[in-house]
Amino acid sequence: MHFSSKLIENAVNEVAKLPGIGRKTALRLVLHLLKEDNGTTTDLTEALTRLRQDITYCRQCHNISDHEICAICANPRRDQHTVCVIEDMRDVMAIENTSQYHGLYHVLGGVISPMEGVGPNDLHVASLVRRVTEHDVREVILALSPTMEGDTTAYYVTKKLREARTGNPLRISTIARGVPIGGNLEYADEITLGRSILARTNASE
Amino acid sequence: MHFSSKLIENAVNEVAKLPGIGRKTALRLVLHLLKEDNGTTTDLTEALTRLRQDITYCRQCHNISDHEICAICANPRRDQHTVCVIEDMRDVMAIENTSQYHGLYHVLGGVISPMEGVGPNDLHVASLVRRVTEHDVREVILALSPTMEGDTTAYYVTKKLREARTGNPLRISTIARGVPIGGNLEYADEITLGRSILARTNASE
Repeated sequence: MHFSSKLIENAVNEVAKLPGIGRKTALRLVLHLLKEDNGTTTDLTEALTRLRQDITYCRQCHNISDHEICAICANPRRDQHTVCVIEDMRDVMAIENTSQYHGLYHVLGGVISPMEGVGPNDLHVASLVRRVTEHDVREVILALSPTMEGDTTAYYVTKKLREARTGNPLRISTIARGVPIGGNLEYADEITLGRSILARTNASE
Repeated sequence: MHFSSKLIENAVNEVAKLPGIGRKTALRLVLHLLKEDNGTTTDLTEALTRLRQDITYCRQCHNISDHEICAICANPRRDQHTVCVIEDMRDVMAIENTSQYHGLYHVLGGVISPMEGVGPNDLHVASLVRRVTEHDVREVILALSPTMEGDTTAYYVTKKLREARTGNPLRISTIARGVPIGGNLEYADEITLGRSILARTNASE
């Protein structure tokens, strides 16, 4: 791509660094900003700058929050004995949208992935272990992605929790895996379908 | 979408204003910036801010340029008698990539589109007419999108040029329309195929 302006080229290069945005899309976005008035660019850059500079994380669950303790952790009506372990904030939002969960969360900040250079120490596992040992947590629900990385992380977290926990019994569970509701059986992949047969549950009467 | 932080919500709102970026993608991009170190966000926002503040346009052809006259207009080896009229800078890049055109350009800055509130006066038509009357331009090639808006704009530009031009004859041409090379005939739409039969050219011998 040959640009008639260094300023454009530089802007396109920076925008194209974002995940899933190629150079053609980056150019389209940059030209859009040029067509709109100055305020659009200012609002965008200020929002991003403020976010990056002022962002804080909940001291307890590591979720992104404007306060030291996030709204979920601070809510006395949530079940303080259940902690759901997820990868990032998007998973919190997805689970909150189901309205089926009323416990607390613990954001790991990723999954173990040697390919991407993410090791166990890059995740918030130690603080999870501390939370479980110091507070009256009775169940930890692992809600990680059903991928190799997610499974490895789940195994590691389980091991660490089992090693640390000495007092009351702790239930460690994993969210159910199987054919998606509304999905057509013939389109389910073999591994999912095979597992969903092995992990069958009693039919409701 | 319910966010745990106003900063995130604000950033997602701003990013989602970009064309073709929905709120889910915006959230993914924003979380990416949070994972990367501070420099990524600074580089991005600075590139956009500088672009928006310092951008200049070629005085002659209105293409984006770092100088008062762009590199194409300033190049003495380009054919000064031919001007290709296009919508925006991306079209210049696309035509330059073909290496088939050696004349100059004139960037209209859009096409007439009552739906989007773009009228003839929002485009650089007057300066095109001035260029054609004041300089020794012998051919104007209209390379606008083959859409209703593009055709309307081409009609308007042609009319204005014909009205203004009094001296030497001016050739006004349109880029060829027909079935794309490498395309399969059966997949061409009816209008394109019909037109390509009417506008057939002599077979090369």
